[in-house]
Amino acid sequence: MNKAIFYHAGCPVCVSAEQQVLEALDKNRYDIEIVHLGEDSSRISEAEKVGIKSVPALLLDGAAFHINFGAAISDLK
Amino acid sequence: MNKAIFYHAGCPVCVSAEQQVLEALDKNRYDIEIVHLGEDSSRISEAEKVGIKSVPALLLDGAAFHINFGAAISDLK
Repeated sequence: MNKAIFYHAGCPVCVSAEQQVLEALDKNRYDIEIVHLGEDSSRISEAEKVGIKSVPALLLDGAAFHINFGAAISDLK
Repeated sequence: MNKAIFYHAGCPVCVSAEQQVLEALDKNRYDIEIVHLGEDSSRISEAEKVGIKSVPALLLDGAAFHINFGAAISDLK
């Protein structure tokens, strides 16, 4: 099973991406985890380590893909 | 069938997104078209009309999602 982590902060841009991009992923091949960095700030450092610089972002097997722009990670601290 | 169009320009950022993001989409539910705006500049105006401002970008059922940043549409003209 491949691993997908969607990092967001509840912003409108994040919600749009969550609804449409996550919906399009193949759930038979990807185990999808959703992390709300606004509510779970303990995971911000983890997100930074894997290269997340803004939200919403999708981590696919360790590779960071920033989707449009909602907020910078630095603004969530 | 849902429609996904991936706009790119052959740049390294584009290739990475094509390989990983497109690979993750559910091909049983999405008809995926790949458009190379560098080679097919006749489709640049279409991309602009649907809200694409940079490549690589993924259009999911008409909604534009810019993935990381490779090049601005204006640089492809």
